[in-house]
Amino acid sequence: MAGGDDLKLLGTWASPFAIRVKFALALKGLTYEYAEEDLASKSELLLSSNPVHKKIPVLIHNGMPVCESNVIVQYVDEAFAGPSILAADPYERAIARFWAAYVDDKLLASWATILFRGKTEEEKSEGKKALLAALETLEEALAKSSDGKGFFGGDNVGLVDMALGSQLSWLKAVEVMSGEKFIASDKIPLLAAWMARFSELDAAKVALPDVDKVVEFAKMRQARMAAAAARAPSN
Amino acid sequence: MAGGDDLKLLGTWASPFAIRVKFALALKGLTYEYAEEDLASKSELLLSSNPVHKKIPVLIHNGMPVCESNVIVQYVDEAFAGPSILAADPYERAIARFWAAYVDDKLLASWATILFRGKTEEEKSEGKKALLAALETLEEALAKSSDGKGFFGGDNVGLVDMALGSQLSWLKAVEVMSGEKFIASDKIPLLAAWMARFSELDAAKVALPDVDKVVEFAKMRQARMAAAAARAPSN
Repeated sequence: MAGGDDLKLLGTWASPFAIRVKFALALKGLTYEYAEEDLASKSELLLSSNPVHKKIPVLIHNGMPVCESNVIVQYVDEAFAGPSILAADPYERAIARFWAAYVDDKLLASWATILFRGKTEEEKSEGKKALLAALETLEEALAKSSDGKGFFGGDNVGLVDMALGSQLSWLKAVEVMSGEKFIASDKIPLLAAWMARFSELDAAKVALPDVDKVVEFAKMRQARMAAAAARAPSN
Repeated sequence: MAGGDDLKLLGTWASPFAIRVKFALALKGLTYEYAEEDLASKSELLLSSNPVHKKIPVLIHNGMPVCESNVIVQYVDEAFAGPSILAADPYERAIARFWAAYVDDKLLASWATILFRGKTEEEKSEGKKALLAALETLEEALAKSSDGKGFFGGDNVGLVDMALGSQLSWLKAVEVMSGEKFIASDKIPLLAAWMARFSELDAAKVALPDVDKVVEFAKMRQARMAAAAARAPSN
């Protein structure tokens, strides 16, 4: 890290979006200050650093804020030396950006539907189907990008690995809470092996939260949502 | 353009996502084949080039497909010489990526709600409020990024300009169809001037569809949606 770089990350421990930024900072070997945000009472620093969305994560580099997780990860890649998060080849970069978006638009959205967004059993069931379909699609993508032996970024962890890896504790929490197996090595063998491989990385060990803690957090959130729904006027 | 580059764009004439790719190709001075897709009967080439989303636009470069409009625009920037679409500075690049996402997540979503997605008058009214709020936020962003005198990309058209500019005919169509003025120069003077400036670009004159044609297209789509809703069982 260049002398004089001041880095501060605003996040929450359970957020996949904050976790992937931690991965990026770790990959580059950067030291940074981390501030855990209370989303029920956001800090003045968060509100002033991300006035448009008022969301974590925000990375503040020498006083200048960068918002939105995949934007931050690409910023970290471009602003700092060290291992590359995106390949040099334009086509490989495009493929990585495509799959990083997919991981949030389809995979994250599906387990969020199972846990939180689905209002009926039917909607939750649709979420489960979508999760299985997204995992199968990612299995194919992994097979193409690295013969399934390394990472989406090839031999090294890249943008897609970080976006997907940041959701690992949540994916396992969904399995615990639903009693169903989604990361089944007989159905998605390459992805299951990738998950085991990713979990062994130092950055993953440090940044990924305990699954039990995520389960507890998710149950509390479900209870809060149920209480709020019970209070709301029916229509 | 390097000798031997074969470029083919799959799009639809009214799609802002396809239009912004046309802007990028024009900025780089690239010649390409354009294929208009019929979304009611997608070509085999589209289905095989974008098997995951099956959506336009797709840019096929020497047989290799790139999907998702902002991914394509960045690919065009990185794969070809010519004027830069993203600045060299990592922080400026991050800011551009942030606003390019905003333009789709907030602005495009708001007028799509007014025209198509809003199911009730209340939802459509919320869409109008969201559109006004998004335009005001973009007014502030433009003031910061270029003192409001040039483009979001500074003196030159960049990623944000292309994402926003690709929606110009639709924004004007929303005004025609709702009978309300959204691009009011007394409320968003910098953005209104930016829109006039952008419309004068050669690329805009070529790629932006006639507003009347967009209005006609939107009315047909509304009529189709209403007919489908009338056929659906009520619940």
